[in-house]
Amino acid sequence: MKYSPGIISVLPLFYIGWSDSVLSPSEMKSIQDKIKGMDFLSYDDQYTLISWTDQKNPPSEETFKSWLDAIKSQSAQMKVSDKISLVDLGLQMAKTSSGAKNEIWDAPKVRKSIEELEAALGVSHQLSKLSFYQSISPEAEHEIEEEKAFDPRAMQSLLDGPYAPLKEKAKKLIMDSFFDISKEVRDKEEMRNLVLDQVKALARQGYGAYAYPEEYGGANSPGGNTAIFETLAMGNISLLIKFGVQFGLFGGAIFQLGTKKHHDKYLKDTGTLELAGCFAMTETGHGSNVRDLETTAVYNPDDKTITVHSPTVAAGKEYIGNALHSKMAVVFAQLMVNNKNQGIHAVLVPLRDEKHETLPGITVKDNGYKMGLNGVDNGRIWFDNVTVPLENLLDKYGGIDENGNYQSSIKKESKRFFTMLGALVGGRVSLALASNTAAKKSLDIAIRYSLKRRQFSNLNEDQETLILDYPTHQWRLFPLMAKSYGLTFATETLREKFAGAYGGSEEMREVETLAAGLKSYASWHATDTIQECREACGGKGYLAENEFADLKADTDIFTTFEGDNHVLLQLVAKALLTDLKQEFNDGGFMAVARHVLQRMSSSVLTLNPVNTRNTNAEHLLSIDFMQSAMTFRSQKLLFSLSDRMRSFIGKKLAPPEIFLRTQTHMVSLAKAWVEAFIFEEFVKKLNSLPESKEKEALRIMLQIFSLHAIYEDKGWFLENDFISGDKSKAIRKVLNKLMRQVRPQAHLYVEAFGIPEVLRKAKIATFAE
Amino acid sequence: MKYSPGIISVLPLFYIGWSDSVLSPSEMKSIQDKIKGMDFLSYDDQYTLISWTDQKNPPSEETFKSWLDAIKSQSAQMKVSDKISLVDLGLQMAKTSSGAKNEIWDAPKVRKSIEELEAALGVSHQLSKLSFYQSISPEAEHEIEEEKAFDPRAMQSLLDGPYAPLKEKAKKLIMDSFFDISKEVRDKEEMRNLVLDQVKALARQGYGAYAYPEEYGGANSPGGNTAIFETLAMGNISLLIKFGVQFGLFGGAIFQLGTKKHHDKYLKDTGTLELAGCFAMTETGHGSNVRDLETTAVYNPDDKTITVHSPTVAAGKEYIGNALHSKMAVVFAQLMVNNKNQGIHAVLVPLRDEKHETLPGITVKDNGYKMGLNGVDNGRIWFDNVTVPLENLLDKYGGIDENGNYQSSIKKESKRFFTMLGALVGGRVSLALASNTAAKKSLDIAIRYSLKRRQFSNLNEDQETLILDYPTHQWRLFPLMAKSYGLTFATETLREKFAGAYGGSEEMREVETLAAGLKSYASWHATDTIQECREACGGKGYLAENEFADLKADTDIFTTFEGDNHVLLQLVAKALLTDLKQEFNDGGFMAVARHVLQRMSSSVLTLNPVNTRNTNAEHLLSIDFMQSAMTFRSQKLLFSLSDRMRSFIGKKLAPPEIFLRTQTHMVSLAKAWVEAFIFEEFVKKLNSLPESKEKEALRIMLQIFSLHAIYEDKGWFLENDFISGDKSKAIRKVLNKLMRQVRPQAHLYVEAFGIPEVLRKAKIATFAE
Repeated sequence: MKYSPGIISVLPLFYIGWSDSVLSPSEMKSIQDKIKGMDFLSYDDQYTLISWTDQKNPPSEETFKSWLDAIKSQSAQMKVSDKISLVDLGLQMAKTSSGAKNEIWDAPKVRKSIEELEAALGVSHQLSKLSFYQSISPEAEHEIEEEKAFDPRAMQSLLDGPYAPLKEKAKKLIMDSFFDISKEVRDKEEMRNLVLDQVKALARQGYGAYAYPEEYGGANSPGGNTAIFETLAMGNISLLIKFGVQFGLFGGAIFQLGTKKHHDKYLKDTGTLELAGCFAMTETGHGSNVRDLETTAVYNPDDKTITVHSPTVAAGKEYIGNALHSKMAVVFAQLMVNNKNQGIHAVLVPLRDEKHETLPGITVKDNGYKMGLNGVDNGRIWFDNVTVPLENLLDKYGGIDENGNYQSSIKKESKRFFTMLGALVGGRVSLALASNTAAKKSLDIAIRYSLKRRQFSNLNEDQETLILDYPTHQWRLFPLMAKSYGLTFATETLREKFAGAYGGSEEMREVETLAAGLKSYASWHATDTIQECREACGGKGYLAENEFADLKADTDIFTTFEGDNHVLLQLVAKALLTDLKQEFNDGGFMAVARHVLQRMSSSVLTLNPVNTRNTNAEHLLSIDFMQSAMTFRSQKLLFSLSDRMRSFIGKKLAPPEIFLRTQTHMVSLAKAWVEAFIFEEFVKKLNSLPESKEKEALRIMLQIFSLHAIYEDKGWFLENDFISGDKSKAIRKVLNKLMRQVRPQAHLYVEAFGIPEVLRKAKIATFAE
Repeated sequence: MKYSPGIISVLPLFYIGWSDSVLSPSEMKSIQDKIKGMDFLSYDDQYTLISWTDQKNPPSEETFKSWLDAIKSQSAQMKVSDKISLVDLGLQMAKTSSGAKNEIWDAPKVRKSIEELEAALGVSHQLSKLSFYQSISPEAEHEIEEEKAFDPRAMQSLLDGPYAPLKEKAKKLIMDSFFDISKEVRDKEEMRNLVLDQVKALARQGYGAYAYPEEYGGANSPGGNTAIFETLAMGNISLLIKFGVQFGLFGGAIFQLGTKKHHDKYLKDTGTLELAGCFAMTETGHGSNVRDLETTAVYNPDDKTITVHSPTVAAGKEYIGNALHSKMAVVFAQLMVNNKNQGIHAVLVPLRDEKHETLPGITVKDNGYKMGLNGVDNGRIWFDNVTVPLENLLDKYGGIDENGNYQSSIKKESKRFFTMLGALVGGRVSLALASNTAAKKSLDIAIRYSLKRRQFSNLNEDQETLILDYPTHQWRLFPLMAKSYGLTFATETLREKFAGAYGGSEEMREVETLAAGLKSYASWHATDTIQECREACGGKGYLAENEFADLKADTDIFTTFEGDNHVLLQLVAKALLTDLKQEFNDGGFMAVARHVLQRMSSSVLTLNPVNTRNTNAEHLLSIDFMQSAMTFRSQKLLFSLSDRMRSFIGKKLAPPEIFLRTQTHMVSLAKAWVEAFIFEEFVKKLNSLPESKEKEALRIMLQIFSLHAIYEDKGWFLENDFISGDKSKAIRKVLNKLMRQVRPQAHLYVEAFGIPEVLRKAKIATFAE
């Protein structure tokens, strides 16, 4: 593509203006007017330029590349000084390409109109002071091999997966300034009211009911619902959580634990937020241990009602989101029928009248300020003998029949309990996804900043060094970025399995284990990543305007709610032990033999001294090596845990004592297992792709993810003779090389997260200082 | 000691009332009135009880123990039910000890008056519902061996060290409700004004000037000043930081970089906050790299003035604490004399007039909301050719003489720069100390909560398990507690060396290296500990009322300010390399030989296969083993770094390139060296003590600190063949045992931190739910 000098004169502006795929819609008109006023351009040129300003139909990747090529070839012919502005660059290039008759490019009028365009495009204050190489090609310092640069949009579509269009739609919506809350808003009442209005706006657009059946205003898409949730995490996290409480927890409980009569009566109004509700499970005295909640729901056969009661102060429902705005609560309580406790059930209890006054017997207390999420109204709720009709019992898994007898399709209380809880797994799936979004957003900010921020003159006499060129900085950020890549594919698989098993199929148990494991892994990943990114941006990272403050404060509770991570990981380990036991039980002697054989062969294969000491880079970078490490670790931890437990049983230790003695082991096993799962999904994704630059770029992420995971846990691998000390050192060296490979494309890797600037917001990632 | 039934009836109340060594002074009168109204008590008994209510002269340890003994012996004789209240317990015990004539203890009047006393003591709503064993002897479940229980007050005096009285004084002061800021205050202007008043109050009491000479209102005690700072960290961290900015940074710069004329003119008013000032060093464009600041200070020989100027937007002073309240700034700028740049110097520049309006040429912009510290007014400051008299140049290390020529006692610019910066090392010393205080406060809250919070019935049919009885919980909290213990002794040594070298002696270099290392280590320790404690307290930890929110948000920047931790650790490594080089240079051939010999002998000693594989618990718990590990690691990292650098030099790599290639290595070395230093100071402290229960308890902390540090870095130790895989596993087992030893005394270990309840505040650490 050969461009005219006129077009060339503004190419740098367009390249930068579009470089983050966002052109402000409100400024479009003004940009077009400016172009029409540039009378040194031919009509054709004006037309072409205007065609490039349509946000709905942005320039194709090809066009974009043609700009870059034109800029590169033009600028190669001239001496580009270090500190040239975009306008000067354009003018110089136009002049060069004009040949002899080039005085026009010196005319003050021309310069002025290009400067005005620059202002309209909103790039002037950002970039005019930055040098061409720094802003247009951050990779210039470490020369990127052109043929290796991948297309961030193609990569984004790999990451976005099947729900890409829905995600784009949700993103567009929350980009509206209506969803922007100023950092100056600190008062919780003000924040809560703003967020309430925002949730209403989402509900009006049909986002609230997305998981519900169509007859209740929904799209019958639990997977889509999680995609919306995942995307909302790019914006205000208070909004995300209030959205989740209303539609996922409250509505989800009605949908999953209730029956048609409940759906007909409540689901539609829940999805539109006509009926604001909360999910009253946790009590002050019982958080993780839901089964021993103290609240009672006593069936009164005389008038076919249920009396809900908090027997002690500690039986109050604690930390209930939406508690102050709700009209109704789903209350989890011990259901007593004919003096017999049938275990935990959920009952719908109205909380407030139309005037929003609490009903008799209901006490609600504000939880006050929290570390974050101050736009969510958390409170404590007590019930003093509140009586509701029997029909308010959500009776999908257990109800009371005509004769006042308890009936359930699941006879065993413990199985019923876990089935009910399992039906609510969507919250954990959603949180795993949203955690990763928050991590990506911080990485996006920190990496962009590290490509602008310079400190100390080391490599270059004229300019200080970009902080991303420091190996310590790369080691801090790239492994976290690789984890976010891996988690993306693993959580996509989880979403798929969840959507497939929705409504309670046999596969649900697998989904529960995966959700527990990935929620824990992803929420810790978010906590670690936001912290590291904050520190990596120094004092600037501490300012509210740069987003980490809210990201950190708002997501910090993700490691606790929807199940404390330590407790969840123990559930994962228990499930793995059960599976192992099942395998033994099913297979009898042969299974045991297989087990032993498997252990033998794995040790023969992996503990082969040649392999243990193989420090060859090709071997270390091979999927085979990583696979063997991941499998060996989770298998060995599982077998040794099972062996230890058997030996304790042999010694007649009581089960609770055995549990305590193996608790840390269980947590290690669960972590290793989750990491192996992420690895496997990453490999599957990679293998499913045709050869491309994006595939190569993904392979590097997979290698960093896996080798860094092994290196981080090298203590265990060395302790268990899986690798030798020399091999561990060789892994470090290979990782160093991988970091250097990522460095020139770092901006592309975060660009592919697809977080629009208007949501990323942080000034350090946007404006030059 | 034998007590009368009357006294026995209220002993449980007194025991609990005093159990955290705090009785509210304002309630003392009301308690005494209640006692006087208890007419079933003899006059002697009333007198005794009243003597126990004096907060200034609290019951002795002996008295306290006599109460416990009386309670234990009385309650042993009767069946104490699980959920007895303190009043019932007292009444029952009194009844039992009264013998036959015991009807009085059933009288409603008596019960009522004891209940009123309970309320006056402020223990009723906290503890009446908790069982006797749970509240009075949290160690009951894991029976503590009586003779092992140490005295937390004796331990506290070991931790508090030489400045204990000053610390107590400062603590008492900030316990006043004047220093308490409600969590409802969210507006930064409101917070800033409150904090400003509080700093004034501290100044009035002489705390501000503490480090300055007596003639300027001070106590001439830089060590005392850091002890005050360390103690203030128990309260509002915004107050701490504003205090530090005014008296440490602004006043410290005048004192350390100025000469008598500056001291006479400004120091007194600075110490009283008559003159509010700020420390304008960091610029937007230059944080870590102070030497390349852009602000200029040009000497004008004609009128003997200096013109201070910010040449670019990025040259603006960034993130300056006190910027909005200050009348004056110490501005760091490139001093230009006769067109020659003499490097960074500090100049006093007035910012505002008496009406608090900014002076001509001064622009100040609020930094807005931050993650935390919103009670501190941070801002950006620009200077537009602001001219001040020459005498405003702080000229201790470099000034301009009569003839307009630059003069300095330190000829080399780089040496002068580092000397000036070194004079300001007090900030890092203070921050290392305050970081540890913040960590201790979170541990105190989390451990107290974990001794009240129960979840899941595992060990006991009747009661759920205390969460501190879970091994995962112990592994999460105890190693952090042990680090806080170790850091206490190491930072005390740092303080001592700092106070000794104050004013610029030759030992200052050692102090700088230590301060850089310990500030980094301690601030990361605070970040990690607060995070872990927040998570360990679950959802409760997320509520603002439980303190972690502020602790986290306010201290998060400690890893960045007063020098980014990564940058500081590289300084540490450089200093170690310089020392090593110096040793070579000084000693010539013999030094090299010694070096080689030392390496040989250390490898002979430590890499001896017998030792590498020695998994004997006694060996692992020995100071010798820990010492060899700590020394081996930091020595080996130092020698290998030095070897690598030499080899790169041999390959003719440019120094900046060598720096980049060894950067992660430098950081590892510095961390290892700091940890070894902490270990050594811990050992020295232990060895200095006579045998006692406290010494035994400290030994366990030392063992956990060291073995956990080794275990955490087992990857390195295995990689370097210092330990075998079996030995690493054995260390884990020994650590498990140590955790179990700590468990029954956990509350004593945190009690010894000496943080009064009124400062600890968190409701979860105080009230029963």
